[in-house]
Amino acid sequence: MQVDTILKSQISNLKSQISNLKFQVSSFKLLRSLMYENKNKKTAPTAPKLTSLSELGEFGLIDRLTKNVKHYHPETLKGIGDDAAVFDLGDKVMLMSTDLLVEGIHFDLTYMPFKHLGYKAAVVNISDIAAMNGIPMQMTVSLAVSSRFSAEALDELYAGIIMACDKYKVDLVGGDTSSNVKGLMISVTVTGIANKEDVTYRSGARPGDLLCVTGDLGSAYIGLLVLEREKSVFQVDPNMQPELTGFDYQVGRQLRPEARTDVRNLLIGIGVRPTSMIDISDGLASEILHICKHSGVGCKLFEGKIPMDAHTREVAKEYKIIPSVAALSGGEDYELLFTVKQDDYEKIKDIAGISIIGHMTAAAEGKYMITPDGKAVPITAQGWDGMRRDA
Amino acid sequence: MQVDTILKSQISNLKSQISNLKFQVSSFKLLRSLMYENKNKKTAPTAPKLTSLSELGEFGLIDRLTKNVKHYHPETLKGIGDDAAVFDLGDKVMLMSTDLLVEGIHFDLTYMPFKHLGYKAAVVNISDIAAMNGIPMQMTVSLAVSSRFSAEALDELYAGIIMACDKYKVDLVGGDTSSNVKGLMISVTVTGIANKEDVTYRSGARPGDLLCVTGDLGSAYIGLLVLEREKSVFQVDPNMQPELTGFDYQVGRQLRPEARTDVRNLLIGIGVRPTSMIDISDGLASEILHICKHSGVGCKLFEGKIPMDAHTREVAKEYKIIPSVAALSGGEDYELLFTVKQDDYEKIKDIAGISIIGHMTAAAEGKYMITPDGKAVPITAQGWDGMRRDA
Repeated sequence: MQVDTILKSQISNLKSQISNLKFQVSSFKLLRSLMYENKNKKTAPTAPKLTSLSELGEFGLIDRLTKNVKHYHPETLKGIGDDAAVFDLGDKVMLMSTDLLVEGIHFDLTYMPFKHLGYKAAVVNISDIAAMNGIPMQMTVSLAVSSRFSAEALDELYAGIIMACDKYKVDLVGGDTSSNVKGLMISVTVTGIANKEDVTYRSGARPGDLLCVTGDLGSAYIGLLVLEREKSVFQVDPNMQPELTGFDYQVGRQLRPEARTDVRNLLIGIGVRPTSMIDISDGLASEILHICKHSGVGCKLFEGKIPMDAHTREVAKEYKIIPSVAALSGGEDYELLFTVKQDDYEKIKDIAGISIIGHMTAAAEGKYMITPDGKAVPITAQGWDGMRRDA
Repeated sequence: MQVDTILKSQISNLKSQISNLKFQVSSFKLLRSLMYENKNKKTAPTAPKLTSLSELGEFGLIDRLTKNVKHYHPETLKGIGDDAAVFDLGDKVMLMSTDLLVEGIHFDLTYMPFKHLGYKAAVVNISDIAAMNGIPMQMTVSLAVSSRFSAEALDELYAGIIMACDKYKVDLVGGDTSSNVKGLMISVTVTGIANKEDVTYRSGARPGDLLCVTGDLGSAYIGLLVLEREKSVFQVDPNMQPELTGFDYQVGRQLRPEARTDVRNLLIGIGVRPTSMIDISDGLASEILHICKHSGVGCKLFEGKIPMDAHTREVAKEYKIIPSVAALSGGEDYELLFTVKQDDYEKIKDIAGISIIGHMTAAAEGKYMITPDGKAVPITAQGWDGMRRDA
């Protein structure tokens, strides 16, 4: 019996050696063709037309890259396409989500202190676990850093990460640290636990469900505009003092967002189980469309119901932005967008910090925002560029 | 009762608003001081001395950054400091590990085809799960890519990732895709499952245990040298054809490593339970020192027992490198280094593909390599720079 096992493992060993050798041959051929390709690059008469990444956009690229992905484990209840992956543990599930923050793309160290950056990097990931109605548990943090950064700067960054881990009770359990050719890159992965029947997917909304959102929206984006403005002023005249007084709320929402892990208990407390949920990282419009797509429903959103800070509305107007557009397309609020059954209306309508902003419809009815004067405007996921043009 | 819950949640909401406001005030102060600091940078009479990252080294930096890390969940059995974090699920545990690959630091696209790069990025992470004696389960892949890359290049990269996922039966369940200012960066996180009593930590080795290694070592590093040489030749004269014939094994080990997930079953088959285990990513010497440090033991390694491919030895000599140094300091072999009880000697001594290369001793006896002529040389973790100087 034991000899059998040994033999079998030796056979499997040999087979893997053969497959190894075959791959080495193909490696070698591929390598040679690659080197030839590089060599002939300049003289190649008809290079194949390549697709630039900007043509595809982030979601188009992800769809393209992951279309051949298969699952091998029945425990994988959800893979790509929600706020977190879901792995079956019996009564409970394990959630996993990951986010990347790249200097020059996601943050600007001119006005983003390292401690805040660390805090935010942790929070945006924890927010994904909150969006699945889970409890965050563990985190890994990987850094790629160029030699321009000092250990003291990274101390601050980690102080922010550890501060968030302390607040949200998340165990920092690993990571990887590497040099980088240029700039700073932070990759965070977070896991969480949830009861299997409590997990909220993007796909659970049904026609008639109420569309709800926590907190208020648009301030993080306005905070970014304020910071960008002060940065320009500062670049022109380094003796100018940054004029942030009066923008504390907006700047705080941008530099130090929070994850709404409290919403899970709030909803349990009032006996409401959300039918679908997502966190608002890209803007209300984009997140609503995700829920509609994954749930196969349409929606009616009432513009006048979108919760916004009064001062944020004013500042938006100063920047010549329609306030609701800051909420719809601004993003980075990290509030939760969720749907509940219509029957739960009485339970949820008077809860402070939760706004009912519309309801879901049949897919055929489309996805519309109803303006205060009754016009129906199709909801589209605008990029940030779109915002100022429309204003 | 329900009113109570609502009130409590409103109170907690208010408290969190207060804490939010306090932090915003501190954000604002910090921000102002930061902008002032930037402004005064040139005129500051005594800037504090900052610590460069190169002074600390990777492990020194990790120790420094993570010294304040606390755990909040008793389920976290192991955090930072092993091949993977370990989370208690009852009879089983969940493993999690993450690795970063940065262009210009970890790979060179001159000779690394995208498909191989994807394959390798997946494999080096799966190897960490194998090193914990676990079964890999799920993977997330995050990419930061500059506009220099085409969708077709990323198709190839993903084809390699998916090929590895198929071979090792790992579910690709998520990730994040971002622009990058420069270059390509790949961050992979992998999870796995293991029986709680089967998990092998770096800390389990005891004096008297046998030190074993799978496969052969040093070829991946020699493969890298061959590729680097051909790259230089190619840069001098682009009409030269790369001369890789005869180096298939070494080049294959560098461009397309495999994870030894098969070792788990092999050891179960012969009834041997390893007492500690680690995968060889940084070189045999560095990994032995990790086991010694975490287990609180010393070791005697016999140079003549280190398994190496005969041709790799020859090529090493051509490059004026002592062959064993390629194994000790080269890294990237992704074989498994493990210890077993001395009682298991008979079971393991004749297994093809496993070499007994030494044994563990009391910590006080030190960490030595015994050369074929009987000299005892202290084992040190040399950087790559050290290798050629010593040769």
